Amino acid sequence: MKRGFSVEEYRARLARAQAAMERAGLGAILLTTEPDIRYFTGYLTRFWESPSRPWFLVLPLTGAPVAVIPSIGAALMAKTWIRDIRTWSAPDPEDDGVSLLADTLRGTGGPVGVPSGPESHLRMPLADFERVKRASGLEWRNDGGIVAALRAVKSEAEIDKIAHSCGLAGRAFDRVHEIAAPGVPLSQVFRDFQRLLLEEGADWVPYLAGGAGPDGYGDVISPASEVPLGGGDVLMLDTGAVWDGYFCDYDRNFAIGHATKAQQDAHHRLVDAVAAAFDIARPGARASDLWRAMADIVGDGDAAGRLGHGLGMQLTEGLSLTAKDHTVLEPGMVITLEPGVALLPGRIMVHEENIAITKGAPRRLSRFSGRELAVI
Amino acid sequence: MKRGFSVEEYRARLARAQAAMERAGLGAILLTTEPDIRYFTGYLTRFWESPSRPWFLVLPLTGAPVAVIPSIGAALMAKTWIRDIRTWSAPDPEDDGVSLLADTLRGTGGPVGVPSGPESHLRMPLADFERVKRASGLEWRNDGGIVAALRAVKSEAEIDKIAHSCGLAGRAFDRVHEIAAPGVPLSQVFRDFQRLLLEEGADWVPYLAGGAGPDGYGDVISPASEVPLGGGDVLMLDTGAVWDGYFCDYDRNFAIGHATKAQQDAHHRLVDAVAAAFDIARPGARASDLWRAMADIVGDGDAAGRLGHGLGMQLTEGLSLTAKDHTVLEPGMVITLEPGVALLPGRIMVHEENIAITKGAPRRLSRFSGRELAVI
Repeated sequence: MKRGFSVEEYRARLARAQAAMERAGLGAILLTTEPDIRYFTGYLTRFWESPSRPWFLVLPLTGAPVAVIPSIGAALMAKTWIRDIRTWSAPDPEDDGVSLLADTLRGTGGPVGVPSGPESHLRMPLADFERVKRASGLEWRNDGGIVAALRAVKSEAEIDKIAHSCGLAGRAFDRVHEIAAPGVPLSQVFRDFQRLLLEEGADWVPYLAGGAGPDGYGDVISPASEVPLGGGDVLMLDTGAVWDGYFCDYDRNFAIGHATKAQQDAHHRLVDAVAAAFDIARPGARASDLWRAMADIVGDGDAAGRLGHGLGMQLTEGLSLTAKDHTVLEPGMVITLEPGVALLPGRIMVHEENIAITKGAPRRLSRFSGRELAVI
Repeated sequence: MKRGFSVEEYRARLARAQAAMERAGLGAILLTTEPDIRYFTGYLTRFWESPSRPWFLVLPLTGAPVAVIPSIGAALMAKTWIRDIRTWSAPDPEDDGVSLLADTLRGTGGPVGVPSGPESHLRMPLADFERVKRASGLEWRNDGGIVAALRAVKSEAEIDKIAHSCGLAGRAFDRVHEIAAPGVPLSQVFRDFQRLLLEEGADWVPYLAGGAGPDGYGDVISPASEVPLGGGDVLMLDTGAVWDGYFCDYDRNFAIGHATKAQQDAHHRLVDAVAAAFDIARPGARASDLWRAMADIVGDGDAAGRLGHGLGMQLTEGLSLTAKDHTVLEPGMVITLEPGVALLPGRIMVHEENIAITKGAPRRLSRFSGRELAVI
């Protein structure tokens, strides 16, 4: 699988953004976050882990994007298709890119749109944002969701990368029997599963969650405890592994030693719920339709929370499979189907698969689990 | 090593924040980011990788903190010392915590301080932030750097956790000879080094950078290439491994097969620069003094960039060792010493160690490298 994207793909992304900006009356869009900047540039680095420096990309209504970035990133940005790279020596306590960014934006004439809707945030200090706004002398607005809407519909090349991540995670899941057994602390299983993901080709493992217990697990966000696995536990591992900047996000459940009828019944319902959503995951269906199909089977009805979400350059992005999200599915959207079921009050099992919406039946990106709960 | 902190430590952090709020005339501080919220609560989860939901912590001028969070986090937050936990079912496209947060803030009377200075960002959609401000009817201000200043001075328990991370990374560095040899692609070395870090006890590896080449490397932020190591290369690996939510951040250089005189000379200068900064890293010295001590030895003089930084719950946080940062060192600050030297134009070697400032000589948190470049 080839890393990166063609320059044509980046040009197409820019052209779509500029067409939307034209319709929205925007003279520029200002981007500050890792995925937004990477989407239009291909700038890929783990250096975003450091919060010390802000990074900016300006999309003008016409012409090429302008990177306004700390000089430490100039060499790497120059390897992308971006040619207009303006740098300052950051961090600078006196002027941390503020005047350089304001000058750049002024050149566009504005108005400047900033992603401000659901899931967005501004990755720069608020005080400097106010300074940039004042110094620019321009009108500032919400970007109207332009960037989020573009990112929600993936290209074939993007979907192939997500499928690649799903594939390597699948091989790691196939090896869980090597690392999980009665007596092994959950924290050790977490460490070892990250190792398996790396061995199977993940570039890195930004996300791992999971849980274990005879009646399922308490939640799916807690860090691993030191409690050892016991025979009869259900172990769940849910990863976010990354390959070339694209996530998979799915889980697998395993019965340790033997599976109870309650565990098997729950697993059947979860797999059936995924199948029900899969069957209707066609263009024109709404996110809330898929939620309803799963909620009816897992039995929580209207009390069920989010049962899936968009996926791509971020672990979760875009639509949510909830009762209230009526986003209409389009070919190119990549989503997770993630129903959960309670075995006891406060003890759950969750199952998750990844699919891409096409003109016809969805494409399975994860190799779908069988209906029987695996026993290891 | 014990995970977590005592409730007394959290109470002390809150008391210091509230004393500073009193002096600054703030009725509340609103926190939205992972490290800021964890600092006052102990709420530790990798679920922050998902951008879909905002999370809030309100520090009132008097009384206990209030968590205003998505219901999916309620059970985990309830395991911390926080008792006032207010939840909503997120994501909610109609009101994603806005009215619940505004109500909570209104109860404090304001003014509300928000971290807005260097390295900060607001982790919530800008449009919702404006809604909360309006709905609260309160006065809003910069927090005046209160939270950043508190976090910059670590407790003994925090420093011990960083030392623990440094220790496990040291054991992984000791094993690099197992994974690096002529012909092995750098991308494979990166994967395997993350595996070694996990085997040696890292909870996870949020950050890994590095490079290789006979004359050093081009930068320290690029993802690993597929280029195989060659005999005579210098390989550098720089990690950000985490244990119980605290980072180490240091690197090691290795000569593959044999070291050239130029490589050895560069390494000597780097180790000497670290020693020079270490010698003056006492309370009262300024960040810029340490920068000067290193810049004079690595020879870039005033052209040298950032040669170290604060470290803790984030890979980089707090002060920068630059010419312009005159922050005065205090006992409890944890910093990296990170000089770089150019072997050729555009080809560098970088060396890094981690220390804690004490009343006397600094505490070495990483086991300091010898002066000779290791050959593997």
